[in-house]
Amino acid sequence: MSLTYKGAGVDIGRAADALGRVRERIARTKRPEVIGDVGQFGGLFASPGSDMTLVATTDGVGTKLELARLLDRHEVVGADLVHHCVNDALAMGAEPLFFLDYFATSQIEPAVFSRVVGAMADACARCGTALLGGETAEMPGMYAPGTYDLAGFLVGAVARDKVLGPERVREGDTLIGIPSTGLHTNGYSLAREICARVAASQGGTLKDVLTAERSELGGHSLGDALLATHRPYLREFRSLRDAARVGAIAHLTGGGWEGNLPRALPAGLGAVIDRGAWEVPAIFRVLAELGTVPEVDQWDTWNMGIGLVVIVPESDAAAALRVVPGAVAIGRVEAASGPRRVRWAA
Amino acid sequence: MSLTYKGAGVDIGRAADALGRVRERIARTKRPEVIGDVGQFGGLFASPGSDMTLVATTDGVGTKLELARLLDRHEVVGADLVHHCVNDALAMGAEPLFFLDYFATSQIEPAVFSRVVGAMADACARCGTALLGGETAEMPGMYAPGTYDLAGFLVGAVARDKVLGPERVREGDTLIGIPSTGLHTNGYSLAREICARVAASQGGTLKDVLTAERSELGGHSLGDALLATHRPYLREFRSLRDAARVGAIAHLTGGGWEGNLPRALPAGLGAVIDRGAWEVPAIFRVLAELGTVPEVDQWDTWNMGIGLVVIVPESDAAAALRVVPGAVAIGRVEAASGPRRVRWAA
Repeated sequence: MSLTYKGAGVDIGRAADALGRVRERIARTKRPEVIGDVGQFGGLFASPGSDMTLVATTDGVGTKLELARLLDRHEVVGADLVHHCVNDALAMGAEPLFFLDYFATSQIEPAVFSRVVGAMADACARCGTALLGGETAEMPGMYAPGTYDLAGFLVGAVARDKVLGPERVREGDTLIGIPSTGLHTNGYSLAREICARVAASQGGTLKDVLTAERSELGGHSLGDALLATHRPYLREFRSLRDAARVGAIAHLTGGGWEGNLPRALPAGLGAVIDRGAWEVPAIFRVLAELGTVPEVDQWDTWNMGIGLVVIVPESDAAAALRVVPGAVAIGRVEAASGPRRVRWAA
Repeated sequence: MSLTYKGAGVDIGRAADALGRVRERIARTKRPEVIGDVGQFGGLFASPGSDMTLVATTDGVGTKLELARLLDRHEVVGADLVHHCVNDALAMGAEPLFFLDYFATSQIEPAVFSRVVGAMADACARCGTALLGGETAEMPGMYAPGTYDLAGFLVGAVARDKVLGPERVREGDTLIGIPSTGLHTNGYSLAREICARVAASQGGTLKDVLTAERSELGGHSLGDALLATHRPYLREFRSLRDAARVGAIAHLTGGGWEGNLPRALPAGLGAVIDRGAWEVPAIFRVLAELGTVPEVDQWDTWNMGIGLVVIVPESDAAAALRVVPGAVAIGRVEAASGPRRVRWAA
């Protein structure tokens, strides 16, 4: 029998069909700097001036994908991918300009694809970010049927003299924490393993565990809590930038507190955090208890309720707190030595 | 038993170790525009002036990954990823500026990771492209053990009035073809299916089929031919840009001729191609024969020996051919109607 590309499991037309379903939502992300149309070999975007610095970042959403698939909540991971990239860019002081996505699967299901990429487009539009291009790959045999992976790429820009970073941070500066909506997009392999163990011990399915209502979660299910959208901090970033002299920002993602906060601190300095300054959300407490997760592993894996830490001079802290609802002063910058630079206040 | 992130299969330290092995090779890709160090939330790059247009592209390498893994040739796909992106950018007229990668796997094997990402870094260095950042994701359970996927993201720049594209193409223009090194990074699901069928019919393994020496391939194996590196056309692009008025460029990737050449042509125009102008390389003939692949599917899937098609005014064709060794005039632009815009000369 003769073989064709379609026969080998790859259907170019299917990708085109899937893309056609979201074309209008992608078009709504267009900014004045975007030149020409989708379909070229590269997306075109008018360069900002040479007084600007480009900020480029790439992210995935990890195994939260598996939960989204299991519970048929594909929109969540599409929005997550954009928000994760936007938050990484603003951590450097940048406004987002444009975004590209990579969507890989065994065989495109146009209905699923359009939900994921449509949600990406909507998230881009809300963040004022052009969805400038993407790659859709059918890789039969490499991905299990129904599974897919996502990667996002975002370029933003910041005035050259406004780039945030450790060199702007001083001992005594105040750390402002802004709440997360949950795990965001990190630590899901641990969360899933915990849920899987619970399922095994109860003799039920993973889906049962994820969909059962729980009083500790205010009647919500683990699945609801785990599939909260990774929150974008763009509005809060803009308010803070206008109200205070922001020195550096840490986006608390993979690696939790110790893995991210030091990236915003210069050598020789660390942070002391008062964990009593906010209440750790129930989802983290429930997961930690169900998995008997040691405290150090909780804080080295999850954001524990704070998604973004913004560092400002002590004299600007009050102004900063005023402009961001829900923000709390969680600690300050101090001298530090040794391998761990985040210290918990007694 | 208590659970940790490590216990759930994700080891942040392993990723850091893997990255440490290639840090020096990444450092060698640094350009003067790169600001600061790796490890921040986003890579920083001085913006080109506002007289420039940014060109952004994202690509994967498809299921060539599976062959690279089977035959332990991980370097190939690392270089492929960079070259694919570079070629897409130059198809718009752009020089590459910086590159970011996404590497996702079940559990990082530092030895494999450093071979893949090291090869990416070396390819970036050769193309004068800064490797500005990347995301390394461990997703246990989502990827089968030992498998990984890659996505690349590249930003280039071109003077605003030098962007290439269909609007610069006229009826009668000449098409210049530049040879490929093989399948590059497209049509591997078909190629793999063909090889798998041969293995099944011979009662051998896929690896046997891929490693057997073949007289039709000049004594090389199918694996050798299929794992030739996707060729970068940067040097040829620069020579052509200096020697001729290039109108548009088509990078022949997924979708073969009909899927890509029309992207370089304005509405109402098509291309007539003289397939006698070059010899289709043996690997395509061997695959087509082994799989009894219909001719239309061969040309709609593979590049058939031409990786880049450059469109120049007829009066510039001789000059263009002079500066690129191996380039051949393969056809011209003509009026076209109907769904297919690539016509084969009788």
